[in-house]
Amino acid sequence: MHAIGIDIGGTKIAGGLVDELGGISRFERVPTDASDSDAIERAIVAMIEDLAGGERLPVGVAAPGFIDASQSTVYYTPNIPWRNHPLRERLEERLHLPVVVDNDANAAGWAEFRFGAGRLVSDMVMLTSGTGVGGAVIAGDRLLRGGFGAAGELGHLRIVPDGIPCGCGARGCIEQYGSGRALQRMAGAIADAGGIGTALAAERERAGGVLEGAAIGRLVQEGDPGALAALSELGSWLGQACASLGVVLDPQLFVIGGGVADAGDRLLDPVRQAFVDHLPARGFHPEPVFAVAELGNEAGVVGAADLARLHEDPDFLAFAPRG
Amino acid sequence: MHAIGIDIGGTKIAGGLVDELGGISRFERVPTDASDSDAIERAIVAMIEDLAGGERLPVGVAAPGFIDASQSTVYYTPNIPWRNHPLRERLEERLHLPVVVDNDANAAGWAEFRFGAGRLVSDMVMLTSGTGVGGAVIAGDRLLRGGFGAAGELGHLRIVPDGIPCGCGARGCIEQYGSGRALQRMAGAIADAGGIGTALAAERERAGGVLEGAAIGRLVQEGDPGALAALSELGSWLGQACASLGVVLDPQLFVIGGGVADAGDRLLDPVRQAFVDHLPARGFHPEPVFAVAELGNEAGVVGAADLARLHEDPDFLAFAPRG
Repeated sequence: MHAIGIDIGGTKIAGGLVDELGGISRFERVPTDASDSDAIERAIVAMIEDLAGGERLPVGVAAPGFIDASQSTVYYTPNIPWRNHPLRERLEERLHLPVVVDNDANAAGWAEFRFGAGRLVSDMVMLTSGTGVGGAVIAGDRLLRGGFGAAGELGHLRIVPDGIPCGCGARGCIEQYGSGRALQRMAGAIADAGGIGTALAAERERAGGVLEGAAIGRLVQEGDPGALAALSELGSWLGQACASLGVVLDPQLFVIGGGVADAGDRLLDPVRQAFVDHLPARGFHPEPVFAVAELGNEAGVVGAADLARLHEDPDFLAFAPRG
Repeated sequence: MHAIGIDIGGTKIAGGLVDELGGISRFERVPTDASDSDAIERAIVAMIEDLAGGERLPVGVAAPGFIDASQSTVYYTPNIPWRNHPLRERLEERLHLPVVVDNDANAAGWAEFRFGAGRLVSDMVMLTSGTGVGGAVIAGDRLLRGGFGAAGELGHLRIVPDGIPCGCGARGCIEQYGSGRALQRMAGAIADAGGIGTALAAERERAGGVLEGAAIGRLVQEGDPGALAALSELGSWLGQACASLGVVLDPQLFVIGGGVADAGDRLLDPVRQAFVDHLPARGFHPEPVFAVAELGNEAGVVGAADLARLHEDPDFLAFAPRG
C-alpha cells in the first residue's frame, strides 16, 4: 500500500507518494508563506488531494516543533503561528483520509531506521546537524515519542553547564556545539587565529566576510588542516553527547545526518574518539557503531508516510520489508 | 499466576513469591559470600526451588551490572566474579523453570511503574539515590532495555564535564552529585564551614567523625538549615539531570527513590526548581510530575517477578490489574 508523506518546512512544503520500500513514486514541493496559517493548511490539503488522486491512503504530516503523543495536536512549531493547533482533526475533516502528525526530525529518523543506515538494528539514535541539531530515538523497533510527544529533542541535551545561550532559553545545549552554525563559529575562530586557519580566512574574505558551511565542507574535502580542526572540534562535542545518550538509551547504532555528515569518516572519527573517551564502564558491555545518514532531504516525507502506514496497521511492521 | 522474583545483592540474596497485584505472599533472604560464584548459584537455586514448591512458575532474577538485551547473560556485575556469565541458561538447566535475568534497578523501576508511583503513566523515569544512583526508564509502557541491554544506566549521565571522577572511569557522572554518598560529602563541607553547619558538625563529632546518611536525614526532618542546604544542593543536581533526561525521554513522571527520598517534598522542591530552571523551551509543551518512590526494599523482587510473568505471557500486560 502506498502512503502519503508531507514535510512542512519554514519556507516550503514537500510531499510524496511513498511505497512500502520507502521509494517515492511522486514528489511535489511548493513554497509557502509561514506567517499565513490558513494558506499553509490549504496548500497541504491541495497537495494531499493531488497525491491521493481519489484513493483512500493514509497520510503522515511532519512538522518541526512539539507534537502531542497522540500524533494529533501541534503544541508549538517555530515560524508558523500554530499553538495547540488540532492539525490532525482539521486535515481529517477536510480530506476524509486518516491523518497522523509527527515531529519532522522523528519522521526523518524513522525513515533512516526503516530504509537507511538503521535498517539492521532495533535501537538507534540519530543526530542531524544542520542549522540546529535535530534528534530521533528508536528504542526496541519503536519511535520513542515520550509521555507528551516531545521525546528525542536531542539538540537541547545540555552538554556544558552555564554554556552558550540557546534559542530555547536554556544554556549549553548540544545545538550550540554540534550544529552547522556551531561549525561556522568554530571555523571562524580558527580563521581569526591565523596559522592553520589561513585558508579559512582567505575563503571568508573571498565570500565577503561570511564563512559558509559549503565552503568549510569544500576545505574539509581538500584536507585543509584548519577546516579539519573545526570539524574535529564539532565531532568531539557530538561524540560527548553520544556518550551521554548511550548511558540512557544504549543504542546499537548512532546515525549522524545533516550537511556535516558529507564529511563521512573525517567527522565520524572524532565522534567515535570522544565517545570512547567519555563512555562510562568501557569494556564491560558492547559498544555501538557510528554511521552517517543514507537518506537525503526526502527522509521526512518518507518517514511521515511510513509512520502513517504503521498507525493505520500496527501489525504492518512485523511483516514489512525493509529497504 | 504467581511468579518468583530474586534480587541478588552484594551481601545477600532476597526472593519472594509475588502475585499479580505485586503482593509478596512469601519472602526469603539469605546472606552470601559474593566472591564464591558457585555458592551464589546454589543459594539461588535452593531459594527458587523452595519458593516454587514443585509448581511451574516463571522466575525473574535481578542483578546489579550489565545484563544482555535478551535477559540471559550477565556481562558484568560488581562484587560477584561473573563476566559474560550465561546465568539464565545455567539456572534453567538446574531448575527446569523459565528464567529471565534483568538489571536490579530496572526491576525495581518496573515494580514502581506497575504497582507504585508510576501506575498511572505510560512514560516514567526513576532515579534511585543510594550509595550510587540507579536508574530505570519506562517508555510507552515498556521497560527500556536498549540495543545491548544496558539502557537506563542513569547514574552515569554526565552532569559536569571534567567533574568529579567516578568509579566507572568517566568524570562528572550524576552519581557523584546525586547519591547518598554525595549528600554526605556536601553535608560534610557545610559542617566544615561552621554557621548553618554547626548542628551537622556536632552530629559528626558525636559519631566519631563520620556523618551518616541517617543522621543527615534526622536533621532534615528537624528542619536544620545546614542539612536542608545539603539536601537542596543534592536536589538541584538531580533536577538538572532530570532536565537533560526530559529532553531525551519526555516522561510524564520522574520518580526519586532511595534513602534520600524519605525527605519527600523537602527533596522534591529543589528537584522541581532546578528542573524548570534548566528545561529547554519551557511553556511550549506539557511538563512532568515529580514524586518519591512508593515501594520499599522489596521492589527488586516484585519487579523481577513481574518481568518474568510478562516474558512468559507478553499479552499479560494488556489485561493486567495494576496495584
